[in-house]
Amino acid sequence: MSEFEFLDRMTEPNTTKIVMLILDGLGGLPRTPDGLTELESAKRPNMDALAKRSSLGLTIPVAPGITPGSGPGHLGIFGYDPIVHEIGRGALEALGIDFDLRPDDIAARGNFCTMNPDGTISDRRAGRLPTPIAMKVARILNSITVEGAQIFVEPVKEHRFALILRGDGLGSNVTETDPLKTGVAPLQSAGKDLPSEKTAAIVNEFVKKAHAALEEESPANGILLRGFDKLPVLPKYQDIFKLNPAAIAINGMYKGVARLAGMQILPVIGTSIADEFTSLEHYWNDYDFFYIHIKQTDTAGEDGDFDRKVRVIEEVDALLPRILALNPDVLIISGDHSSPAVLKFHSWHPVPTLLYSAYARPDGINEFGERACQHGSLGILLAKNVMPIALANAHRIAKYGA
Amino acid sequence: MSEFEFLDRMTEPNTTKIVMLILDGLGGLPRTPDGLTELESAKRPNMDALAKRSSLGLTIPVAPGITPGSGPGHLGIFGYDPIVHEIGRGALEALGIDFDLRPDDIAARGNFCTMNPDGTISDRRAGRLPTPIAMKVARILNSITVEGAQIFVEPVKEHRFALILRGDGLGSNVTETDPLKTGVAPLQSAGKDLPSEKTAAIVNEFVKKAHAALEEESPANGILLRGFDKLPVLPKYQDIFKLNPAAIAINGMYKGVARLAGMQILPVIGTSIADEFTSLEHYWNDYDFFYIHIKQTDTAGEDGDFDRKVRVIEEVDALLPRILALNPDVLIISGDHSSPAVLKFHSWHPVPTLLYSAYARPDGINEFGERACQHGSLGILLAKNVMPIALANAHRIAKYGA
Repeated sequence: MSEFEFLDRMTEPNTTKIVMLILDGLGGLPRTPDGLTELESAKRPNMDALAKRSSLGLTIPVAPGITPGSGPGHLGIFGYDPIVHEIGRGALEALGIDFDLRPDDIAARGNFCTMNPDGTISDRRAGRLPTPIAMKVARILNSITVEGAQIFVEPVKEHRFALILRGDGLGSNVTETDPLKTGVAPLQSAGKDLPSEKTAAIVNEFVKKAHAALEEESPANGILLRGFDKLPVLPKYQDIFKLNPAAIAINGMYKGVARLAGMQILPVIGTSIADEFTSLEHYWNDYDFFYIHIKQTDTAGEDGDFDRKVRVIEEVDALLPRILALNPDVLIISGDHSSPAVLKFHSWHPVPTLLYSAYARPDGINEFGERACQHGSLGILLAKNVMPIALANAHRIAKYGA
Repeated sequence: MSEFEFLDRMTEPNTTKIVMLILDGLGGLPRTPDGLTELESAKRPNMDALAKRSSLGLTIPVAPGITPGSGPGHLGIFGYDPIVHEIGRGALEALGIDFDLRPDDIAARGNFCTMNPDGTISDRRAGRLPTPIAMKVARILNSITVEGAQIFVEPVKEHRFALILRGDGLGSNVTETDPLKTGVAPLQSAGKDLPSEKTAAIVNEFVKKAHAALEEESPANGILLRGFDKLPVLPKYQDIFKLNPAAIAINGMYKGVARLAGMQILPVIGTSIADEFTSLEHYWNDYDFFYIHIKQTDTAGEDGDFDRKVRVIEEVDALLPRILALNPDVLIISGDHSSPAVLKFHSWHPVPTLLYSAYARPDGINEFGERACQHGSLGILLAKNVMPIALANAHRIAKYGA
């Protein structure tokens, strides 16, 4: 049976509302073996009070031992199998800079590079080009036209940019121009099927014109392209879950991944966590599923700033009554992965997860933390299994069989 | 996606070291409902100290409710799905007696049997022939030659022996000569494909010559063959896990199974547990994964000797500092299955498992035992999922997606 065939058949509409509050990189590690994690260290009276009335567990975002990027981590907690639905690097790069990537667009990751007079590469990153210069060079490339596609060159950071091709009948199955080493010339792109041959021809023509246009721009006198792909097509929340979903996020990548699931991206006036909660209140009557993304926990974790991650969690805890005042039928608090401050990086550790509803079986646990959740009745489960449990608690899954 | 396609893609080399210490049949049962298991009864200060800094769990070797033999039990904790990779009985019999079974050898289990003058079987086990006599009869059979294959007859115990055919282009898809009842003649072997027809012809020729050679050897005047197979070909640790693995074991079967995974079998001078640890120390710099097999826990469990199993665990605990002194990046302590002394047999019960690394999330549990592990953050998991978590803790798995 295909991934959602059974669930699609079992879900049914209702008027109940589900809120999924994702603290990015929520899971952590103690600073010493006998210490507390970031979440365990935080003062979280509201989360703890909610834990008493909730089912708890630890979620595995992708598979045991796998450290997910933000894309796969979100797909998991959204209910998808992140191994089945892979989001390519090019598409993620475009989503990450808030580019409005459309379903048929071809996206690639680009580097500005330095070329020798003989056409070989001398530096794959153009000396880590300063971002302002990259923006200027990108403007030059954006003036290039090639027949068959509209071309967008979007600077990302330093030498990195995103290339997007928009046109009819373009395939994404093309080879990369980046040889991944210096001393050789960039590669010609080749298509592995007919629509992709069309893409490869456009790519090669664009690279040729780009190198001509950048002749005087050393160290950024060349470009390298890799990770060509389209957005994956995901089964939509409207279909598989019978939900009318919305997303509240500040950063582009999260909006992009939410859009893949069929979520409407809601405006947020401002960039604070409180601003996101204001958006939730404003649109409360218009949707029945709300994903709220809190970026700051992950940023603190990646910065290795244990105390700041604790403070972000405390800030969310203090704001939690504003969500509870809306009386959601189901409230999930979780993360897309762990980002322990001691590792300064995403990690494979399972993520503390809380599922509140009037019908959740309380676990007899009075706090929300990694080690509390490990004893919870949700168990240690794949993240993709959380949504069906949330739907059940929202009375949105029919009885199976008689 | 096939079994290791995803993991193979995600693993990457590193210089970190992983030790997997397997106490065969580690899991147990209490003697009375309110008693302690063998592991819980043992004095294990070193394991308990390590547990405080480790993630704990209970591993299911094959599938819920399945009691594994040593072969499947090991495949599970080695990271393979033991249902996908089946090791046949003939191959296991040969591995179990330390026979150097090669990838293309055909192995079968043999019985010496007693034949009536009319060619029918009167006793399928030749009165459970004493082993010394079986060794003598095996020597007679070893002098038989048949064109197309080199033939090895290796006594196992009492009436049991292993038959190995070594030759070019032999298939293992042949029918058994053992009719599994008395009063009828042995069956002719038949091949189900062309290479196996070649094998069947050799088998039938060999049986004919064997019966002639054993004419005067009643009660061992006949042979019965069953369970023809080759060694399975397993994806190797070198490929799927990017590890350079070695195995330390005293008994043949464990070496054989380890070899299937690509492990180098290390010499052990002596047969004690301490001797095995000496081998680990000696070869520490030459490999990055070490499997150490402790047989004595299982033997005590199968003998129904609760107290002896406790003492073996205490012996391992006392030696544990020798492993810790080597500073492995990851240390797994587990078993291939349970062998509760009260059952005197392998069992289906999940196996206490400890995973130590500097990056393991400590579970807040201060002891290593069945009931302690049931509360651990590894959860109750299939044994095959332990290796990916170990690789993650050894920083040997790349981030998935961006």
